[in-house]
Amino acid sequence: MAARRGGGHPVITDIEHRVNYSETDQMGLVYHANYVIWLDMARTEHLRGTGVTYKEMEEQGVYLAVTDLQVRYRRAARYDDLVRVRCWVREVASRRVTFGYAVERGGGDSAGMPELLATAQTSLMALDRGHSPTRIPEHVRELLAPSSDPVRL
Amino acid sequence: MAARRGGGHPVITDIEHRVNYSETDQMGLVYHANYVIWLDMARTEHLRGTGVTYKEMEEQGVYLAVTDLQVRYRRAARYDDLVRVRCWVREVASRRVTFGYAVERGGGDSAGMPELLATAQTSLMALDRGHSPTRIPEHVRELLAPSSDPVRL
Amino acid sequence: MAARRGGGHPVITDIEHRVNYSETDQMGLVYHANYVIWLDMARTEHLRGTGVTYKEMEEQGVYLAVTDLQVRYRRAARYDDLVRVRCWVREVASRRVTFGYAVERGGGDSAGMPELLATAQTSLMALDRGHSPTRIPEHVRELLAPSSDPVRL
Amino acid sequence: MAARRGGGHPVITDIEHRVNYSETDQMGLVYHANYVIWLDMARTEHLRGTGVTYKEMEEQGVYLAVTDLQVRYRRAARYDDLVRVRCWVREVASRRVTFGYAVERGGGDSAGMPELLATAQTSLMALDRGHSPTRIPEHVRELLAPSSDPVRL
Repeated sequence: MAARRGGGHPVITDIEHRVNYSETDQMGLVYHANYVIWLDMARTEHLRGTGVTYKEMEEQGVYLAVTDLQVRYRRAARYDDLVRVRCWVREVASRRVTFGYAVERGGGDSAGMPELLATAQTSLMALDRGHSPTRIPEHVRELLAPSSDPVRL
Repeated sequence: MAARRGGGHPVITDIEHRVNYSETDQMGLVYHANYVIWLDMARTEHLRGTGVTYKEMEEQGVYLAVTDLQVRYRRAARYDDLVRVRCWVREVASRRVTFGYAVERGGGDSAGMPELLATAQTSLMALDRGHSPTRIPEHVRELLAPSSDPVRL
Repeated sequence: MAARRGGGHPVITDIEHRVNYSETDQMGLVYHANYVIWLDMARTEHLRGTGVTYKEMEEQGVYLAVTDLQVRYRRAARYDDLVRVRCWVREVASRRVTFGYAVERGGGDSAGMPELLATAQTSLMALDRGHSPTRIPEHVRELLAPSSDPVRL
Repeated sequence: MAARRGGGHPVITDIEHRVNYSETDQMGLVYHANYVIWLDMARTEHLRGTGVTYKEMEEQGVYLAVTDLQVRYRRAARYDDLVRVRCWVREVASRRVTFGYAVERGGGDSAGMPELLATAQTSLMALDRGHSPTRIPEHVRELLAPSSDPVRL
């Protein structure tokens, strides 16, 4: 994963994840709710890469709660696939940030190109320790520079 | 849960679910991906109530795979809450069916009215044993009568 | 589920659980880690039945953390099975309580007798808010009356 | 992760795993059932490292089903911890193989030594496509060379 950056530059983070047996269902595919966890894993690494960890944010009393989730499933991930999840900021406002995601299977098609398995978007609202809406701290907001979408969501 | 009905009548199914410790996260709330499983539980009981179980559908070689998922989180569910998930058909076509959902906490507000925790929608595509798109069997499609939304999604 | 009892009487609690699609894996069976969640669900209802909820215990600053887990899987649970999980106290000490469990599928064999799917045992240690070992409060300990095992673990 | 080896040599595999938010519970620790999935992830990589993937085994019609699970939880894993899971073969017989595991947090104590978070053991039975017990294929069994335990289970 990317090293810490100075922040402020639009960036797309990617993580790799090996599909585990626990994530499959009896259709022989990955159960759809598990992709939602992958999005969280990618978002966590995106924050880490920009220069702040979500763990640090919580220690400073700022929580990010998902308020909107949209996933479009295009092709199924399967057991033991090595999937890549890309994550970027789409929009940021004073109390809210929206992330985009693309889930791909590396070198999966006949030409060795990555296959797009799913696209997704989540909006998160900043909450304080009492679970009330709050502002995203300025130093965090500066790190959340929006990128243009690398794929059509 | 409702007994089998003759089918064909628009209907809204509801299930109750007690939030388990495994579903919480360190924010002290239910982790957002778990709601997606609750939707599946409600959809399963909706099918059962109309007169066909999803298990029977699979035995007959028809699978329903989620292709689109949208969830709007409004208030957080918490440990040990008894939540109610309502499910209904929004639209049905030859190869696709869209369900709507409302997640509520019973008698939760000060006036004893149920609180709306989340609304959601999933679209599912019918697949055959080889995972290719197929038509929803006629006797199933007849059971999937669309209802008007009981809440605004 | 059973109403509150005065407590102090050995008792075996049972819950029913409908196996959801999310709990299956590509072997077409329930993924083994999911049974561990079912144990928690049964333990929660056992406490509620004796007269104290685990939620209340946490509000009073007493947490129960699993320190030992043993599961013996005998027959596989499958999608849409209605499983029954029985839970009872095996042993209780000042800071520790051990529960036993039997997971069954109702009326599953040819003679209509329940099939034993798994047996299990968990030991839990009482922790305070700072996660240090503490004593189980006296009024809780009195409710945790050990039963003899209804099945061989 | 280790490259493929010729097999037959006792070996201990280790994987790293970053604790995700989905794995925490409201106690602020990792929910205990999630460790069971980590064991599976480590076992999968252990097989891959010895020269056969579990995916290939299933394609050849041999399934490994967990029949016994024992976990001893010693210290709690927390959000964003980078945990290491070590896995090795303890015993192998014609139809059964037992794995040992150690879950550690890297450099976690004051002297920078890894902290032992949990130890575990799982026994798996070989099943054929019809879910009946079968022999572990000879070429697989040769790869499953038992190691002595690197930690006391």
